[in-house]
Formats: sequence, C-alpha cells, structure tokens
Amino acid sequence: MENNILVAQSGGPSCAINASLAGVIKNAKKHNLNIYGAFNGIEGILNENFIKLSDISEEDLNLLIHTPAMALGSCRYKLKENDTKILDKISNIFIKYNIKYFFYIGGNDSMDTVKKISSYFKQINNNIKVIGIPKTIDNDLMNTDHTPGFGSACRYIITTINELIRDLDIYSIPSITIIEIMGRNAGWLTLAAGMPLFLGQNKPDFIYLPEVPFSNKLFIDSINERFKETNNIIIVVSEGLKNYDGEYIGQDSKSGQKDNFGHIYLSGVSKYLEHLVRSTIGCKVRSIELNLMQRCSAHIASKTDLDEAEKIGFEALNVALENHTGVTMIYERISSNPYKSNISFTDVSNVANLEKKVPDKWLDIYNKNIQKEIVDYILPLTKGIPDTFLDDNGFNKYFIIKKSCD
Amino acid sequence: MENNILVAQSGGPSCAINASLAGVIKNAKKHNLNIYGAFNGIEGILNENFIKLSDISEEDLNLLIHTPAMALGSCRYKLKENDTKILDKISNIFIKYNIKYFFYIGGNDSMDTVKKISSYFKQINNNIKVIGIPKTIDNDLMNTDHTPGFGSACRYIITTINELIRDLDIYSIPSITIIEIMGRNAGWLTLAAGMPLFLGQNKPDFIYLPEVPFSNKLFIDSINERFKETNNIIIVVSEGLKNYDGEYIGQDSKSGQKDNFGHIYLSGVSKYLEHLVRSTIGCKVRSIELNLMQRCSAHIASKTDLDEAEKIGFEALNVALENHTGVTMIYERISSNPYKSNISFTDVSNVANLEKKVPDKWLDIYNKNIQKEIVDYILPLTKGIPDTFLDDNGFNKYFIIKKSCD
Repeated sequence: MENNILVAQSGGPSCAINASLAGVIKNAKKHNLNIYGAFNGIEGILNENFIKLSDISEEDLNLLIHTPAMALGSCRYKLKENDTKILDKISNIFIKYNIKYFFYIGGNDSMDTVKKISSYFKQINNNIKVIGIPKTIDNDLMNTDHTPGFGSACRYIITTINELIRDLDIYSIPSITIIEIMGRNAGWLTLAAGMPLFLGQNKPDFIYLPEVPFSNKLFIDSINERFKETNNIIIVVSEGLKNYDGEYIGQDSKSGQKDNFGHIYLSGVSKYLEHLVRSTIGCKVRSIELNLMQRCSAHIASKTDLDEAEKIGFEALNVALENHTGVTMIYERISSNPYKSNISFTDVSNVANLEKKVPDKWLDIYNKNIQKEIVDYILPLTKGIPDTFLDDNGFNKYFIIKKSCD
Repeated sequence: MENNILVAQSGGPSCAINASLAGVIKNAKKHNLNIYGAFNGIEGILNENFIKLSDISEEDLNLLIHTPAMALGSCRYKLKENDTKILDKISNIFIKYNIKYFFYIGGNDSMDTVKKISSYFKQINNNIKVIGIPKTIDNDLMNTDHTPGFGSACRYIITTINELIRDLDIYSIPSITIIEIMGRNAGWLTLAAGMPLFLGQNKPDFIYLPEVPFSNKLFIDSINERFKETNNIIIVVSEGLKNYDGEYIGQDSKSGQKDNFGHIYLSGVSKYLEHLVRSTIGCKVRSIELNLMQRCSAHIASKTDLDEAEKIGFEALNVALENHTGVTMIYERISSNPYKSNISFTDVSNVANLEKKVPDKWLDIYNKNIQKEIVDYILPLTKGIPDTFLDDNGFNKYFIIKKSCD
C-alpha cells in the first residue's frame, strides 16, 4: 500500500510559503513518495480538490521557490471545537487517498487546525502524521526564533523606506509622511521599518508599535517638537495602533467587518492620522500604506529567508518519517554574528493560537543599545539576493500550479 | 575667464533624474569644465546655494546613477511672466559665478522656467546657454518619444502588479481590488499597469485611464457583469479619473489644496471607489495606492531607462557647447524591435507647459491590435536590470550630496 503525502497552505500569503512547499515536494521526490496538494487548504481537502505534485520538474520547483503568494491557494476555514463529523470526514478522505503524512503550511490560526486534526487522529488511532510548517510575514509565532516570510518582508520594507527617505528629502517646505506597516498586534514589521534609523540614518523620525498605547495628543506634541529640528518628518506606524482603552486608532472610520477568526479587517490608521495632522497642524501631509506589497514583493526577497523556508519544508518530511505528529517546525538561532540557525520542532500547542509580540524590553525603541539588539536580530534574516528568473518579456518568472485537477 | 556650468533639478523625483545629473557631470569632467549644482532648483540659484560637483569620483557618479529621487533637491518655484527683477537677479548671479551653461532637469513646468530664462537671456544678450533636460515618470512631455524615468516606473509597476495578481489569486471568495496609479491627466503609467493583460495574462480585469470620462454606474455594471466569469476582479485606475463634467472622481473627499502651478493635490480615487463598491456591491474590496514607490523604487529600475537618462544628460552639454540655447533634449525612437533610439533636441516652446496624453486611438484599450502597439511602445523601455551596489548591511547603496556648501 502506498504511503502518500498531502500538503496544503492556509492563511495570508508571503514570499516564502511556496519555498516551503517546494521543500516538502523535493524531499518527497527524494524518498520516492507520491505527494498531492490540496487547493485552498482545508476547503480543498473536504472537496477532494487535489493535484499530484510529484511530477513537477526540478527546474519548476526552483521557479516555485521564487514565486510569491500561495501556489495551492488559501482559505480562512476555522475548524470548530470537537467537530467530529468534519474531522471524521477528513480522516476518511485521507484513508481513501492513502495519505500517511499531512503538512499544513500556515500561521497561528492554521496551527490551530493542525492541533485539532492531529489530536483527533491520535484519538482515533488512524496513524496519520500531521505536521505544521510555519509561515507568516508578521513573525508573531511563539517558540520559533522567527518565521519563514518575515525576512523577505523586512527586506522589502527596509529597501522601500530607504527609497522613500531619499524621495521625501527633496523639498524644503515642512512636510509629514506617515507610512503604515502590517502587523495587527505584533510590531515586528514596524521594527523593520525603523531599521534605517537603527542602522545610522536620521529617519524615520518616529516609530509607533501596536504594543505601545497610542495617544493622539502625544503624537501631535512630538511632531511639533520635532519640527524644531527638521522640516521633513517621516513616521512609521503599525496598522494595529490602539489607544489606552485598547481600541484601534481610527476604528470608527473603518469597515468593522470581521473575518472567520474574528479579526477586524483593518485599513487606514495612516489615513486617519493624516487627517488628524491636517486638521491640527495643517502642513503638507501624506500617508503611504505599504499594503500587500509587503507580503508579495518576491523581486526583493531575502535569499536567507527563501533558503531557510525551503529547508524547513524539506525537514518537515524527515520529522514525519520519524513518526512525529502534532508538531510545528521551528527555527532555533545559534548565533547572529555570523548568522547560524537550526531547524527543529515543537508540540503544536506551543504555537497554535498564540501570538508573539515584541518583547517589553525592546519597546524602549530610541535606546541605542536596544536598537543594536534589534539590528542583530533582524539584519541577518534580510541578507542575500535570490537568483532571478526572467520571462521572455524581462519580468520575474513564476511557476503556477493549474487549478483544475484533470 | 572660466566657462562654468550650473545644473539644477526641479519638479517631482524619479529613479532616473540623478542619472541625467551624472551624465552632465561626466561630460563636464571630460571637458575639464567646472560644474556647480544648485540646491532646490531656482530657489537655490536665488540663494546662491551652490556646491561644486566636478570633484565627485567616477565611482560615486556610478552610485549617483542608481540613487533615486533628486540629489540636488527640488522646488516648485514658478517664475512669473516678465518678472525682469528675478530674471536679472538670476543673470547677475550667473555672471558672478562665470556660469556659461545652465542645465535644468525637470518636467513640463520646469521647461516653462527654461523657456523664460533662456528667452530673457537672449533678450539681454548675456550669451549664457540654457538647456532643458526632461524627466518625469508621467511620460507626458510633448515632442519626445518618452521621458527619462518612465521606463523605470513602468518596470516597478508591472513587476508589482504581477506580484499582486499572484497574491490576489489565493482565495476563492468574491473580491475586488482597486489599484491606483499616478498620472494626473495622462494615462501612460496606468497603461503600464495594464501590461500583464496586454502580455497575455487575464488580469487586470479593467483599466481606467484619465483620458476617458468615468461613470460610477458603468463601473459598477462592469463589475457585476465580470463577476459572472471570475471571483477575483482586479482593477487599475489612474489617480486623475474624471467624470463626464470633467470633475475629478471623489473630489469632494479630497483636500482641494493646490500647488504653486495650480494643480490640485490628488489622493484617494481608489479609496473613493472602494467605498462605492462596498456600499453598492458589498463584497470584499480593497484599494491599493502604489503611491511614491512608483517614482522612487530604484531597486527595480530599468537599465535601458538609466542608460538613456545618463546619455541625455551627457549629450545636453554637447548641445550647449554647440551654442544652442532655449532647447529641451528629447528621445527619438528609431525602431522598437530591436529597440533603438537617438538623442536630439527641440525648441523648449515645443515642450514647456504642454501635456502629451495617451493618443485617442490607444483608448480602445481592450482591442488586441492596440494592446500590441502599446506593448511595442512600453516594453523596450522597461528592459534590463541595472548593476546593484550594496552597502555593508546588504541594502542598496546611494550617493548623497551634502547640502551644506562649505
């Protein structure tokens, strides 16, 4: 009887999630194991929307590593507690296709799915191994040094902020620019946006993390104070800034829609602050959202990130073949200078539904010693330029998995 | 007596304007002529805020070519008609510094400055040559095949739209994404955003140029129609969309502030359309402004663009040395396949204050023959990856001219 592999992706995309997928496929091919992909995460499993991945050539797998977003699509499907009907259905589908090893690539919500499926499978003793492979540009997973996708997002953000600093330096009239960075509750990417300052430039002027309560009054006071020293103020803010009551800044102006995990769709803290500045200070003010480009700018990905993401996918199969289940793959940092890391794993309950925020100590963000610690943490993850594959028109070439299964 | 050169930059920045500056400096060095830069355009001239550029090393000039924005800063200073007091002041300052050749790098507003200064200098017979060097990502200058900076902006836009297409392909729920592109009155950059469609992909679904009157009703009708074929609709819109009465779409929600040339500061047509879609259709909708990144993303510049921009700056000095004045440098296209172009010049009155829009014929944007013509026009300008210079931290390295003159 065959021992087949199934892999799926879930949550929001990144530049590195396809590298992890390629890693799993490469190791499956090495072990001569059939590997299937399910489209759109758990939804694709329930619909048996599978595609065979074993036949993808080495050349296409290398393209896949450099392809942004999620070649197998995503979903925001949330398994209910003790939904044995659905869990049984999943188990029966896996048995029907002789799936022995299941890999789910995603963030902390997806690890909740891994946790529920793996513990149910243990309970019914179907002997199917379930492994979580982390990803999220947000870097908010517990018990891993960092997450696949974070380094590339940092490289994009730092490069772009550096370019914006140049762009915003050209006029002599007073101006304020507010740049909005992803990160609902954790300020890791906003820390990256501060890297030009930490690396010795004098911009950005201010960095506002979601971990620190935000006050409109202190914000305006700081700007007025800074105008004594410079005409050109650059501010980076997390999309998830909250006031002292824990309410999102500018929440009134937002849609208020929630996704299936209960997260409010955020947009527009920078627009809100732009209007606040215009109505209180009145100078030239502009807001810039780096938006989805933070998670999909594969053309400026970090080679370190892509290499590690491929490797963590590759190693995940080894861990499954050693009969582990209900675990999430993780990175362990050995040293920062020179940068060295290990791949390991931890029980999925150490990751699922938990959120790693920027540590309290690092919230003292204008302290030079803290800045050095942040640089030592982030900089190695951004290093290296990946190979570039161009199509006939001269643009980045991608590998796209066809969605039909025939 | 010395024959000195002065160069300045004006208007909005781009990835290529410093390449033109480097070209002028390189040719000045070749001719052993002193060259000065004025900070912040005409403002810097009036304040005699000069810096000597002749001593910049060849290595730093190569870095300058790859540095975004404007190394000499910019201004939005508009010379008044027949303001002989200011024009005399400029002439006297030039004579004081033995300036014989003046180069002004800018767009159609800056060419108005070139026109006024050069015709006044002819009138008073001071024998100082004044040459305009074009730049603008908007590509809206008359009588040149294209403008320096346009090709790099196109390369950024096409690369980013390609990545966003991948990113937006991952969910199966109905969604609309509205991407806002620069271009107040001319849709050249919005055409570039349509290039993935013209090059054979099925996205973006709709492309709205500022040259075509916009109707909210037709917009919503088109979306509803398209939802019969796809769940994921991607729309690119120019920042300068206008209704049938010529009013900017969503103008009410804008600041209404005007700059010194009487242009209204635009922001937010995509936000306006996002709210329109949410209130009429109600599905998931997101707006994305590519914002300043369109003009400063040097890390994804076009080599063809940078090479040409350097060359047009270099040749400008040759034209001045041939005693021409009151002219603007231009590109002439010889062929598209293979791409070949010439550098020439034209009387500045053929460029100043004029705006080149997308030709009527090309507004038939979903016609395959027209799409091929657009591809033939834009694609060659985006080709080639420039050399990459990285700093010790692994990020793009720039050359920054110190603003103090001592």
